[in-house]
Amino acid sequence: MQQHPQEEILAQYGERMLLALDWLSTFGSDPEGGVTRLLYAEPWLKAQLALIDNMQSMGLKADFDEIGNVYGKLQGSNPALKPVLTGSHIDTVKNGGKYDGAYGVIASMMALGYLKAVYGTPKRTLEMVSFCEEEGSRFPLAYWGSGHVTGVLSLAEGVGLADPEGVTLLEAMEQAGFETSQSGQYPAKRDDIGAYIEIHIEQGAVLEFKEKQIGVVTAIVGQIRMTVVVTGTPNHAGTTPMTMRKDALAAAAEMVALTEQMALTEGEPMVATVGRLEVKRGTSNVVPGEVEFTLDIRHTDERKIEAFRADLLAKFMEIAVRRDLHIEMVEHLNALPVAMDSGISAEIEAACDFYGYEHIRMPSGAGHDAQLFGPICPSAMIFVPSRAGISHSPKEFTKPDELVVGFQTLVHVLYQYGYGGKADETL
Amino acid sequence: MQQHPQEEILAQYGERMLLALDWLSTFGSDPEGGVTRLLYAEPWLKAQLALIDNMQSMGLKADFDEIGNVYGKLQGSNPALKPVLTGSHIDTVKNGGKYDGAYGVIASMMALGYLKAVYGTPKRTLEMVSFCEEEGSRFPLAYWGSGHVTGVLSLAEGVGLADPEGVTLLEAMEQAGFETSQSGQYPAKRDDIGAYIEIHIEQGAVLEFKEKQIGVVTAIVGQIRMTVVVTGTPNHAGTTPMTMRKDALAAAAEMVALTEQMALTEGEPMVATVGRLEVKRGTSNVVPGEVEFTLDIRHTDERKIEAFRADLLAKFMEIAVRRDLHIEMVEHLNALPVAMDSGISAEIEAACDFYGYEHIRMPSGAGHDAQLFGPICPSAMIFVPSRAGISHSPKEFTKPDELVVGFQTLVHVLYQYGYGGKADETL
Repeated sequence: MQQHPQEEILAQYGERMLLALDWLSTFGSDPEGGVTRLLYAEPWLKAQLALIDNMQSMGLKADFDEIGNVYGKLQGSNPALKPVLTGSHIDTVKNGGKYDGAYGVIASMMALGYLKAVYGTPKRTLEMVSFCEEEGSRFPLAYWGSGHVTGVLSLAEGVGLADPEGVTLLEAMEQAGFETSQSGQYPAKRDDIGAYIEIHIEQGAVLEFKEKQIGVVTAIVGQIRMTVVVTGTPNHAGTTPMTMRKDALAAAAEMVALTEQMALTEGEPMVATVGRLEVKRGTSNVVPGEVEFTLDIRHTDERKIEAFRADLLAKFMEIAVRRDLHIEMVEHLNALPVAMDSGISAEIEAACDFYGYEHIRMPSGAGHDAQLFGPICPSAMIFVPSRAGISHSPKEFTKPDELVVGFQTLVHVLYQYGYGGKADETL
Repeated sequence: MQQHPQEEILAQYGERMLLALDWLSTFGSDPEGGVTRLLYAEPWLKAQLALIDNMQSMGLKADFDEIGNVYGKLQGSNPALKPVLTGSHIDTVKNGGKYDGAYGVIASMMALGYLKAVYGTPKRTLEMVSFCEEEGSRFPLAYWGSGHVTGVLSLAEGVGLADPEGVTLLEAMEQAGFETSQSGQYPAKRDDIGAYIEIHIEQGAVLEFKEKQIGVVTAIVGQIRMTVVVTGTPNHAGTTPMTMRKDALAAAAEMVALTEQMALTEGEPMVATVGRLEVKRGTSNVVPGEVEFTLDIRHTDERKIEAFRADLLAKFMEIAVRRDLHIEMVEHLNALPVAMDSGISAEIEAACDFYGYEHIRMPSGAGHDAQLFGPICPSAMIFVPSRAGISHSPKEFTKPDELVVGFQTLVHVLYQYGYGGKADETL
C-alpha cells in the first residue's frame, strides 16, 4: 500500500462511508433535533441489527456479544497473532449529533470492508466493534460496552440502576433480547485483544483553530471532580455594611477567578472548570449565605492534577479563613490519565505523512472507550476536527473531506497491522 | 419632663409596652414559626380591630381610614398646629418576626397612652398610625398604607394585582370590609401632617456591633437594582483549552469580586450586593455559556450611587470586551435617597443625652414608611438594635431593655412636640 495504494477504490469507500454515516443517523432521528439512540431502546437495537447486516454483506463475520456490543471480524491467517480491534460506540446522548461514536463505528466498518475487498485475508485478525454504550445518557453509568469487554464492569454494576422512566438496566437489556442471568458475571469480557484503535471527532476546537486535519492523541486526561460548599451568613443587603458581611458568593467568586487564573498559569494541557454554581436561596436583596459549585480539573499527568488540586484547595482555605467562612469540599470522581501507545501513534503519524495530512499530537480532554483499553493493551486514538468544538448537539459537524481524511488514515494504520510492516509483530 | 420625669409611671408603661408587643404577636402566630399577618387577611383584620379597642381604652380617638390604616388621635388644644404623626406598619412577611413594624405601632400607642395619662391634653395634636401594609408580602406592591396617606399611591395602583392564590388586592380589601369604589382615587390621602416620627428595629447589626442603644437615622438610602446577563460560549470542559474559552461564569466572578472591592474602597455607607447569580444550564463538565446576576447598590447620596454605578458598569464592559463576551444590563429600580429631618433628629439625640443612652447617627439601608413622608414633611426615625441583624425571621430579636430604651426616647421626643419646647413650633 505504501507504494501503490488503491486510491480509486479507497475514494469510493470514503464516499460509501459518508453515505453510511448519514444512513446510521436515520436510526433514532429525533423530531426534537439530532439523534437519540439510547442503550437497549428500539432505535438502538435496529441500528445494531442493521450494522450486523451491513458487516455481513461486506464479508465480515458479525454478531452481538452477550451484552449488546456488535463485533465484525475479518479473520487473519495467523492465529498466533492477537487481533487488532477498532471501533467506537453506537449510543448517543439525547438529541446528540450524528458523528460522536457513530463516525468511529462506520469508519471502522468501511475500513475492514475496503481492506477485505482489496487485500483479502490479512495475516492478523482485524476486528471492529460497535460498543453498546459509552455516554451514560439513559442509565447513570458510562462505558457499559467497553467496560464489559475490558472486565472493568460486570452485570452486577447494572443492578439497581434505572432510567428516568423507572425501567431498570437489566429489564431494558432483557427487553432488547439479551440474557441477564449469564453464569459468569463478566459475560462479555475478552482477554485476547492485541491492540485497540479508535477514530473519533475531537469534540473540541483545537484542530480547527490550529488548522490541522488529524489529532494524534497522546493521552486521555485524568480528571478530578469535586463539589465545594461555601457557607457564610445571609444578611440584609441594605443594612449590613460591607465590612460586616460574610458573603458566600463574594468568596466563591474569588475562588472561581482563582481557579481560572491558576489553570492559565499552569498552561496546557491543564484545564479547570467551574461549570455549575448555585446561590442557595439567592435573592437580590440578601447577602448570599451559601454557595455550592463544582470543580472539574483535567490533565494528562496525574501528578500535575494532584499538585494543582492541593495548591488550589489550600488557597480556597486561605480565602475562607480570611473571610471567616466555612468551606467543605467533596470529591466525586478521580480518574487517572490513560496514556496512548507511542508505537501505534507513530504509525498514525506515518500514515498522515504518507498522505500529506497536517497532524498534531494532543491530549483528549473528553473520555472515550479507548481509556478502558489503555491499561490492558496498546491503544491509540485518531481525532478529526469538530466545527467550533460543538458536540452532544444537533449542531455537531465535521466536513465530509475531514471525515474522509480520518478514514484514510485509519485504513492505512489497519493495513500496517493486518497486512503491512506491523502484520507480523507480536502485540 | 426634663426636670421631673414621671419615671415610675413611664417604667410601668415600658412594661405594658413589652406585654402588648407579645400580645400583638398572637395575631397571626404561625404554626410554621414566627408571625404571618398579611394585608387584609383575618389575623391582620383582628389585630387592627384589637388595636382600635386598645387605643380607645387608653382614651385615644381611634378608627380605620378608608383603606385600612388605623389612626389613634390625642387631640391637641391648638388647632393651628399641624399634628405630629408617629407609628409604623402592622403587616409582616410570611413567617416574620414580632418586632418589625409591630414595635413601632405598639411603642407609639403606649407613648400616646402614657402622655395622655400623665400630661393630659397636649398643645399640638399627637397621632399614631398602624399602617395597613409596608412589606409587599401578599401583593407585589409595598407601602400600600403610607403610600396612600402621602398620595403616592392610589386605588388604581392596586388594580390587577393578585396574591399567589389569585385573590386580587381589591377583592381582599372588600372582603376585609373596605370600600373600593370611593369617589376619590386617593381616599386616604392626608395633607395636614406636620411631621412623621417612626421607631423601628434596625434590621442590621451595626448598633449591636458598635454597642449603641439608639440609632438616629440620617437618611434612608437610595437604591438601584439591576440585572446583568453575561453571554459567552458553552463548551466542553475537557476539550476546550483555557485560552480558547469564553467562560461566562469566570467573567461574572470577576465582576462580583470587583463589585465587592469597589464598595469596600468607596467606604460606608456604600453597599453593593450580588444576591442572586444563576448559571444557565450549568453542569459540571461544561464551560458556562450564560450567567445572570442581580446588582443592588445603595447609598444615602444619590450622586454617589450614580457615580459608583457608572464606574462599575464601565469596568464590567472592559471585562466583557477583554474576554470577548456579550453583556446586557437592565435597571429594575431606581429609588432616590430620602434625608431625615435634622431638627427632629436633634431632638432624638437630646432625648438620648437626657437619659444617658448611647447613640449614633446612621443611614437606614432598608426601606421604611418614613421614606414616603420624607419628601412631604419633616420626618425622622429611631432605631433600636437587632440581635445579629436578623430580621424577617422568627429569630428576629431585640432585648426588652433595648425596646424600653427606644420607647422612652420616643416618648421624650413626642413630649417635646406635644407639650414641651417644640409644642408651639410651626411645622
